[in-house]
Amino acid sequence: MNVTNEKMRFWSPEVRELEPYVPGEQPKIQNLLKLNTNENPYPPSPKVKAAVETVLVDQADALRLYPDPDASLLKQAIAKQQHLSVEQVFVGNGSDEVLAHIFKAFFIQDEPILYPDISYSFYPVYSQFFGVQTKQIPLNDHFEIVVEDYQQNNGGIIIANPNAPTSVALSLTNIEKILKNNPDRVVVIDEAYVDFGAESAASLVNQYDNLVVCQTTSKSRSLAGLRVGYALAQAHLIAALEAVKNSFNSYPIDRFAIAAAVASFEDQTYFEEQCLKVIQSREQLIEQLETIGFDVLPSKANFIFVTHPAHVAIELAKALREQGIIVRHFNKPRINQYLRITVGTDEQNQRLVNTLKLFIN
Amino acid sequence: MNVTNEKMRFWSPEVRELEPYVPGEQPKIQNLLKLNTNENPYPPSPKVKAAVETVLVDQADALRLYPDPDASLLKQAIAKQQHLSVEQVFVGNGSDEVLAHIFKAFFIQDEPILYPDISYSFYPVYSQFFGVQTKQIPLNDHFEIVVEDYQQNNGGIIIANPNAPTSVALSLTNIEKILKNNPDRVVVIDEAYVDFGAESAASLVNQYDNLVVCQTTSKSRSLAGLRVGYALAQAHLIAALEAVKNSFNSYPIDRFAIAAAVASFEDQTYFEEQCLKVIQSREQLIEQLETIGFDVLPSKANFIFVTHPAHVAIELAKALREQGIIVRHFNKPRINQYLRITVGTDEQNQRLVNTLKLFIN
Repeated sequence: MNVTNEKMRFWSPEVRELEPYVPGEQPKIQNLLKLNTNENPYPPSPKVKAAVETVLVDQADALRLYPDPDASLLKQAIAKQQHLSVEQVFVGNGSDEVLAHIFKAFFIQDEPILYPDISYSFYPVYSQFFGVQTKQIPLNDHFEIVVEDYQQNNGGIIIANPNAPTSVALSLTNIEKILKNNPDRVVVIDEAYVDFGAESAASLVNQYDNLVVCQTTSKSRSLAGLRVGYALAQAHLIAALEAVKNSFNSYPIDRFAIAAAVASFEDQTYFEEQCLKVIQSREQLIEQLETIGFDVLPSKANFIFVTHPAHVAIELAKALREQGIIVRHFNKPRINQYLRITVGTDEQNQRLVNTLKLFIN
Repeated sequence: MNVTNEKMRFWSPEVRELEPYVPGEQPKIQNLLKLNTNENPYPPSPKVKAAVETVLVDQADALRLYPDPDASLLKQAIAKQQHLSVEQVFVGNGSDEVLAHIFKAFFIQDEPILYPDISYSFYPVYSQFFGVQTKQIPLNDHFEIVVEDYQQNNGGIIIANPNAPTSVALSLTNIEKILKNNPDRVVVIDEAYVDFGAESAASLVNQYDNLVVCQTTSKSRSLAGLRVGYALAQAHLIAALEAVKNSFNSYPIDRFAIAAAVASFEDQTYFEEQCLKVIQSREQLIEQLETIGFDVLPSKANFIFVTHPAHVAIELAKALREQGIIVRHFNKPRINQYLRITVGTDEQNQRLVNTLKLFIN
């Protein structure tokens, strides 16, 4: 809504300047093919449903009593799956909340934090929200991170790996270089999409006292509807996140979400199978799109980033939308000729390709 | 954990100073009578369980897809129950998150905000978190708010009504005086416990452009396990909260919580019946405690605030704990001789009274 200047007097002055994040739309259209918010095309493990059912049926006090403020059972399940200790796990209401706490906990420093010029568009929003100074480091012409550029005075570093919206991954070797070059600053690796083929930095947690890895159950675990994200780091960094969390909201994760996420982490086989299916579908989709002339960046995510030399990206997005297919276009420098497309099931991807063929010859 | 000075270099300097909120403990003890966190002794409406069941069984995509970032169905249900428009409703992940957003949205001003010296202990925590200046206004000797004291330069006002942990309510007439005396500042009435007998300021939302009312489903609706809170205010104030929320976390409320809370708001009859039961139990409990010598403040909440002239409060709390009954003691000036006791079922209250009689003669 438009708020008049007269009514604006009630707002905190700094809030008048906020430019909030705009999530991908969630339209309510029949027969819609939604390839715009990188959701998983497959449901979560059947054990998830069973776990929620159990809370509902067997735990009489599940609703009237507060959940465990520490979500200990969830931390244990994550620690076990990640081969870390419980003190190395932080959990929050989706990885967006975890990232917000990370910005507050580590990035309010005298020097600017560094992140790529093309990356998750929530990073500048958090920075403004918490008064964090930023310096954006350009990706190279292949949309790759140049490790040497992160060797300069900074208040911290955050890198999405694979990067969003480009889908391009950074190797563990390169991540280690950045960690070593910045021994006095926290380096955050935001791994929302890591399970679709990139190397996780979680294996480095015990070696580097300046590393924070952020992951989510929303993508590879098909739990976007539930809001559970987490961070992995040495205990002295987790302690900072707990201090921030306990100054903001004592009970961020509800009882159903805790039970459901625990069940997901306990079904590793299902998880790996689904990730593999998405990876295989992605490779097939890339091949089909390249056949009709698209350039596709090398993807390690559950989405691809594509451009067509003979077609204007936003026009393609509009044409797809008219056929009930939604993809994401970012009206930003360097990438406004690209579309970000979520990998669906093989059938969904086929519908996308067939529809694109109507416009592309 | 203890973080060494060397490791502290990673923390944002301001986070090193945070003094987080400490929630009431959630111990896992058999046959425990938990009267320390003001949970409702009764389950929520049966329609709540049915609604979660429906999400689980009928909505195949409930888990893998993001929830509605605006939680529109929930806003509609609240608006209908409160006789307000959807634009006058803000929802969040428990009223603690809503309060945090309120502090950010309105209270970062050049003057200090005002709140009672004895009140919800999260207010100073939020203030420190967001860099809000504060001035605590002493309650009078009857633990009542003196309206005239809130007529001074300020950056906003927040009052819990009924107040916590005192249980004492402020009349709507007095709230209106405060609203009228502060036409250029936001006055927040935090009504976590209002449904147990106090007058809600929600009826004043259309009259006062500086009023924000905050409520929760955790207490009177027995949904503490689910994390849903909300604010009611004119649209220009809700817009500030939306700007803050969308700069922090796009999807704070998961699909189960949305469905469950909607079902609760649609069962007004059950809600009113349960509130009445708690009120009747409270009055009976007060009478019994007064009979054995306790002074009990006049309560409009689902808890009471009591002191005994012949017994040390913390000793009574310890003695109760040894018998498996947990109540809350605040080691703070003016109230360290008091105990805050949640109203349970009649049977639970009887157990409390019988146990107290063991120590009190």
